[in-house]
Amino acid sequence: MSDSTRPPPTVAPWRQRLYEIIFEADTPAGKAFDVVVLVLIVVSVLAVMLESVRPIDEAYHRELRALEWTITGLFTLEYGLRLICARRPTRYARSFFGVIDLLAIVPTYLSLFLAGTQGLMVVRALRLLRAFRVFKLARYLQESQQLMRALRASMRKILVFLFAVVTIVIIVGTLMYVIESPTNPAFSSIPRGVYWAIVTLTTVGFGDITPQSVVGQVLASVVMIMGYGIIAVPTGIVSVEIARAARARPRICPACTLSGHESDARFCRGCGGDLAEIGQ
Amino acid sequence: MSDSTRPPPTVAPWRQRLYEIIFEADTPAGKAFDVVVLVLIVVSVLAVMLESVRPIDEAYHRELRALEWTITGLFTLEYGLRLICARRPTRYARSFFGVIDLLAIVPTYLSLFLAGTQGLMVVRALRLLRAFRVFKLARYLQESQQLMRALRASMRKILVFLFAVVTIVIIVGTLMYVIESPTNPAFSSIPRGVYWAIVTLTTVGFGDITPQSVVGQVLASVVMIMGYGIIAVPTGIVSVEIARAARARPRICPACTLSGHESDARFCRGCGGDLAEIGQ
Amino acid sequence: MSDSTRPPPTVAPWRQRLYEIIFEADTPAGKAFDVVVLVLIVVSVLAVMLESVRPIDEAYHRELRALEWTITGLFTLEYGLRLICARRPTRYARSFFGVIDLLAIVPTYLSLFLAGTQGLMVVRALRLLRAFRVFKLARYLQESQQLMRALRASMRKILVFLFAVVTIVIIVGTLMYVIESPTNPAFSSIPRGVYWAIVTLTTVGFGDITPQSVVGQVLASVVMIMGYGIIAVPTGIVSVEIARAARARPRICPACTLSGHESDARFCRGCGGDLAEIGQ
Amino acid sequence: MSDSTRPPPTVAPWRQRLYEIIFEADTPAGKAFDVVVLVLIVVSVLAVMLESVRPIDEAYHRELRALEWTITGLFTLEYGLRLICARRPTRYARSFFGVIDLLAIVPTYLSLFLAGTQGLMVVRALRLLRAFRVFKLARYLQESQQLMRALRASMRKILVFLFAVVTIVIIVGTLMYVIESPTNPAFSSIPRGVYWAIVTLTTVGFGDITPQSVVGQVLASVVMIMGYGIIAVPTGIVSVEIARAARARPRICPACTLSGHESDARFCRGCGGDLAEIGQ
Repeated sequence: MSDSTRPPPTVAPWRQRLYEIIFEADTPAGKAFDVVVLVLIVVSVLAVMLESVRPIDEAYHRELRALEWTITGLFTLEYGLRLICARRPTRYARSFFGVIDLLAIVPTYLSLFLAGTQGLMVVRALRLLRAFRVFKLARYLQESQQLMRALRASMRKILVFLFAVVTIVIIVGTLMYVIESPTNPAFSSIPRGVYWAIVTLTTVGFGDITPQSVVGQVLASVVMIMGYGIIAVPTGIVSVEIARAARARPRICPACTLSGHESDARFCRGCGGDLAEIGQ
Repeated sequence: MSDSTRPPPTVAPWRQRLYEIIFEADTPAGKAFDVVVLVLIVVSVLAVMLESVRPIDEAYHRELRALEWTITGLFTLEYGLRLICARRPTRYARSFFGVIDLLAIVPTYLSLFLAGTQGLMVVRALRLLRAFRVFKLARYLQESQQLMRALRASMRKILVFLFAVVTIVIIVGTLMYVIESPTNPAFSSIPRGVYWAIVTLTTVGFGDITPQSVVGQVLASVVMIMGYGIIAVPTGIVSVEIARAARARPRICPACTLSGHESDARFCRGCGGDLAEIGQ
Repeated sequence: MSDSTRPPPTVAPWRQRLYEIIFEADTPAGKAFDVVVLVLIVVSVLAVMLESVRPIDEAYHRELRALEWTITGLFTLEYGLRLICARRPTRYARSFFGVIDLLAIVPTYLSLFLAGTQGLMVVRALRLLRAFRVFKLARYLQESQQLMRALRASMRKILVFLFAVVTIVIIVGTLMYVIESPTNPAFSSIPRGVYWAIVTLTTVGFGDITPQSVVGQVLASVVMIMGYGIIAVPTGIVSVEIARAARARPRICPACTLSGHESDARFCRGCGGDLAEIGQ
Repeated sequence: MSDSTRPPPTVAPWRQRLYEIIFEADTPAGKAFDVVVLVLIVVSVLAVMLESVRPIDEAYHRELRALEWTITGLFTLEYGLRLICARRPTRYARSFFGVIDLLAIVPTYLSLFLAGTQGLMVVRALRLLRAFRVFKLARYLQESQQLMRALRASMRKILVFLFAVVTIVIIVGTLMYVIESPTNPAFSSIPRGVYWAIVTLTTVGFGDITPQSVVGQVLASVVMIMGYGIIAVPTGIVSVEIARAARARPRICPACTLSGHESDARFCRGCGGDLAEIGQ
């Protein structure tokens, strides 16, 4: 993001300085700004949570409202500053974090006009997503990028896997409905059977719906042991991709851009170029 | 399958064209056909699920019946076309997908003659299996083949593992029955004890049957910690096989057919043949 | 075992033949014998399970008793034949499978003299362990040995891990008892708190004991997320050892006994010896 | 620790001998001392647990009190001896194990002056941490160090992962509160929704709070399948790090300090130095 919104060197110095504080985290002021925003996010999400607790809301309704408006004010100010110092304000406003920043302030203003503001609570909880900006902070970047790369690389295999899981769950749920529904009111429809199958296959096991007949319990046993084995598949997929991402990380040959060199290799396997320059 | 059912080049052009649309997915028409079938499958399975929900079925019984007959009609037409354009119709009819295709249309016709059609719902849910054809579509093929290969390679180890799990579960279930049955009506027989042991070892934990005595809870604790460790075994097995399948994937030496080359190797480790031709 | 109990070549031919049938599985007769024993084991364990189901036992008590005595008779005969044809009968009688074979027949005879035979059911369920002999059958041997090797290699790390888990569980259980016991009768003692902690950390989650206070639920949340991360540790340990066992399997240099060669290596990395003789 | 507290060679022989017995485990006396302390720890923690069980405490209150004071006396003696023979007593007293050793004896003395000693039970349970000293015993050291190294190496990735989990759990919990609270009193506030989300995502599934509405159950299904996939991530991270730690373990080139050599490599990959000296 910082590439697309960085102002050109000929921009006014105060805008350049503001940009560095707000969008970057390399300067002490930039780091301090990020920490303050992070604290505000956490406080505001805690406020949303406490507001939903009846006795706390009754005792501290005014304080919570005041806190909400203060934080919304600060977030509005921040959003304005971001729009001002970004080189391409519309591009920022349309970016993922731009939308999240806007969503962080809209619900409070909307609550002035709307009566039932239950649904707005969810939007206010989305403020947490703003905190992910913090990962641009220093050294967590590489870790989160590595994780993302591993997940993206395993996406297709996981989709195939999820499709198989959905098929199993629907067939098992239908079977369970046919077996249990005559005697067990908990399995009153196929969707409930499918819900039970998901609860069971994922080993969550709430216990609100359980098979009562012998045939149903035998089928449940098969599903549970299957789920036990099936859970191994996504773990295997992701493990392999994380291992690959971790291995591929730090070593790209500067000459031929090959990656995947052993961590103690000195020369590129493909072209023999010196790897020493990129360090461990 | 496409190999075994592809008509010879001397076949009538319209049959050849029909074959390409129905059995293959390389042409735009073929892709469109697959997408339409996929949508019909999903709609028909949703209809089966909604039909089982009493209030929905009461309100929309006629619409759901009409939908069912429409889709069955289309699937019957499709089945007929597949029989016509396949080079070896009997071979197709006996293949896995041929049987599934037939099962997708039979239940609706049977429901005309049979009274209790509960059991037919399961057969209708099997239509979902037809959707697996979609993986012949483009690029998911390699992913699903890799997963299948990994699972097949770990099959024997998983069988040994499952045998050990079944033994543990039966012995633990019997022990639990002996310990708990005098005071706890939930453990009324060994099969129920075994059912509890499966629910516990797989970490599903419904909570409909729980040990009440101190000795029973101590044994349960041991089983749970054991299950915690045991779940590691299939995960380990599958991870290793997926890693192997992923590594073995793209690089088979054209000269000596060795596989398992590092992703940046240029020459075959076994015979020194050039690997460049097969690409990354 | 077959090494220690194999009769010398000068033994009577019928004993030699009997030995091959009973202790080995290379001849057709030996394989058939193993299959028959396996079926008898499964039938007898199923009989134990059915006997514990009140209505079935009441309806078929005589048949189940007759079956039990028949199978016990056959197992007694088998045990006698094993003692006769083994070269060192006492050695066989003291071996793991020798003890299991004896335990398989003792309970039925004991039930003639003892009144309460509940506890004997567990001993009868141990018959299942006899089935593990079947893994000497053909090709499952390598798979089960590999699994055992991987588990044995990771044993020490898993012990360290289990010790940490037990410590966590006791400290969390005590903490939970102090927090919850004043208001929640389910946490009536520290052992119950520890039991809850085990149920939660292993993600079993029966739900028979749950925290009710806010502080208790916060602590429970921490324990659950911790358990989620902790489950990764044994999986990681076992995966690594299985990968190592799988890699080390087929390739040991005949010249210098080094193992761990890549599956396509032709020459030993350590001494340059030819690996071709041992095959893939 | 042994480095920092080892007395210089010129120390009085009896102190040197005492040091070897108490702080080290290389001599028979040192090993025996460690075993005795380990037994005392286990006994004292069992006593704490039994004391909390009402009927046992009522029947054996005096015996448990006597046991507690005996063990506290022995631990006090041990603490004194450790202070005497350590070369730098203040350094020992401030170290992790020094604090734990002090915490092991303080609660019993405090119980003389304080009335409600419930909270002290937790401190007494912390005695278990003293048992971790036992891992300095012989050969478990390497295993526990390897595990610690793997966990430390994956710490940052796991933090990123945990942050993502916390975000998901808060957003899902808020959503669930908005969906369920109008009809389901179990979802009475957002914190309870978040608690439910944690219970579900970690696959614990107590079942004390469950969604009742159709929309809620659909969202729950998505969360469960997500949790099923998400559990793969920490497992993958830890597996990779354990594999790396295991590989890196025994082989560090004495000439250039590179690590990660294959277990059968004879020469350093980086500098060609001889690896034979460090052994397998």
